[in-house]
Amino acid sequence: MNRTVADIGEFGLIDRIHEVLRREGVQNPGVTLGIGDDSAAFKPHKGFELLVTCDCAVEGRHFLPQHITPLNLGRRAMAMNISDIGAMGGQPMYALVSLGLKANTLIKDVEDIYRGFTMELNPFEACIVGGNLTRILDANFIDITLIGEAEQGKIVRRSTARVGDVVLVTGYPGRSSAGLKLLMNFPDDENLRNHPLVRVYNIPPHRAREGRVIARSGYATAMIDTSDGFLADLGHICQDSGVGATLIQEKLPISNELQQAAKQLKQNPYELFLQDSDDYELIITCSSAHVEQIRSSIAGISDVPVSEVGRITNAPGDIQVILLDGTRRRISPAGWNHFNR
Amino acid sequence: MNRTVADIGEFGLIDRIHEVLRREGVQNPGVTLGIGDDSAAFKPHKGFELLVTCDCAVEGRHFLPQHITPLNLGRRAMAMNISDIGAMGGQPMYALVSLGLKANTLIKDVEDIYRGFTMELNPFEACIVGGNLTRILDANFIDITLIGEAEQGKIVRRSTARVGDVVLVTGYPGRSSAGLKLLMNFPDDENLRNHPLVRVYNIPPHRAREGRVIARSGYATAMIDTSDGFLADLGHICQDSGVGATLIQEKLPISNELQQAAKQLKQNPYELFLQDSDDYELIITCSSAHVEQIRSSIAGISDVPVSEVGRITNAPGDIQVILLDGTRRRISPAGWNHFNR
Repeated sequence: MNRTVADIGEFGLIDRIHEVLRREGVQNPGVTLGIGDDSAAFKPHKGFELLVTCDCAVEGRHFLPQHITPLNLGRRAMAMNISDIGAMGGQPMYALVSLGLKANTLIKDVEDIYRGFTMELNPFEACIVGGNLTRILDANFIDITLIGEAEQGKIVRRSTARVGDVVLVTGYPGRSSAGLKLLMNFPDDENLRNHPLVRVYNIPPHRAREGRVIARSGYATAMIDTSDGFLADLGHICQDSGVGATLIQEKLPISNELQQAAKQLKQNPYELFLQDSDDYELIITCSSAHVEQIRSSIAGISDVPVSEVGRITNAPGDIQVILLDGTRRRISPAGWNHFNR
Repeated sequence: MNRTVADIGEFGLIDRIHEVLRREGVQNPGVTLGIGDDSAAFKPHKGFELLVTCDCAVEGRHFLPQHITPLNLGRRAMAMNISDIGAMGGQPMYALVSLGLKANTLIKDVEDIYRGFTMELNPFEACIVGGNLTRILDANFIDITLIGEAEQGKIVRRSTARVGDVVLVTGYPGRSSAGLKLLMNFPDDENLRNHPLVRVYNIPPHRAREGRVIARSGYATAMIDTSDGFLADLGHICQDSGVGATLIQEKLPISNELQQAAKQLKQNPYELFLQDSDDYELIITCSSAHVEQIRSSIAGISDVPVSEVGRITNAPGDIQVILLDGTRRRISPAGWNHFNR
């Protein structure tokens, strides 16, 4: 039961991985040649553009093995990539997985990582078509490339927000960061494993399905996922679109759980909301005339809340907040903590 | 001049990489959205299948920084992937690069790695459309995903060799392994840097252009690159096609350089030819009636020699050699060294 990668070697491990994928994965009909040759092959659909993204999770830097199970690690690493495809309005289709594994990595842990991948891919009928295994010395890594597709001309970029647009956000950003901070601050608390914020940190929900219906609606002017944190990603929209934004503090969606965790952590909940956090919510901009269309397109498939939190302005790169007392303050991704003064 | 990754940070490094790509890379007209959003996007061509492969090079395992310049490292890592696309008959198009970098990695070395990528991609009008940078502690890695395309139905697999087919090989497999062994055995020999076999180890030639014309000719029944070594890759063809092969020792192409290096290394040159070696030559199978068509399709674009080295047999997984003295011997990838008895 506790055999390692070193015990069965590369080809033995590949066989075990294939077995997991055969039993638990789905097969996408677009695949014309799956795992096992020099390259995999698939047939693109007429009228679609291809989307492609890659993201890497490194032990010690992006995940701590003592805090996350291999299954959840696989889910998390794949969800990051699914979110990137969804944030453009795409459908995830084909994944390639490159693993760097220490010799003492358990086979069953690698199998669980792949189970995690398929759990996230299966709902999209997406599948793993290739990859690579490398023995490494120090820190395991998972590098995923995910290919998706979207109807031609329907991709939503981050660089196309317009002055006067409304800023929407799904869900409750900041929960993942609060979950991680709880784990770090209370390492001996066994009950934390089931804490809702820790669960969000371990298996971050993504909004790829929502991103897809938003893109198909045609009403979003720009979209991005909040993988760098709400403020940094709103900053990306502003910088790449040549615009600014004004947020309204009282409209920022802070969940009750985040309020409580902020107390425990002695932190301002708005800081947790704004700053670096591995949530995969969506920031969407659109004309104020189209907010309801976007809301209803999302409501058709999901019960995630959508909050209107501010407006796009004509001051390039300038992000301001109207505070609860009505005063204005300028904030920036580098200086979000000014928010706390 | 000697600034490190830690000195300028992730975003500073991304800017430097973009500058290299802007100045030295080409832009593929299929790209509809390049680097800088959650995903990149491209428009597939009508009537084409997409090919996708990934391969990872890890410091200490796949390359030794003391033996290879960053420029050549970049070329080598990209060439491995280009070869995989070419061995299916595909045209390389879009690359994603995930780098794991230690904090003390020099900026100019990262720039040189990217120069190496573009040197290999430019001849195909292929370009880098995305990627990822990760700070790591121990050993730098380069993980590349390469996407290519081929006319629908023209992809050549490894699993479709037929009994009676001729086995062809391009160039002189084994040269890369000999180059590496020279470096390891004579670490203090400064002149080795310019040794032709060391050059092959550092910048392995690939046969992607040749693979493409072979596939378009329609005459190859199976094809693979020799990235695992000639015997192992012929073994992949045999295993996946359910066939065997008989080789003729006197027809195996051993270059004069390899003969000489084998003497220096006190090794059998045929072993160097057969065993694990990072060459990217092609093994091709075809009907004996079509050898000349394949030769002439290659000769139209390249002066690489093509040798007819044996036949496909109906003994699944069984690879035999007819030795110089006319006797037969069975060999297998696991037991290539039996060849030497």
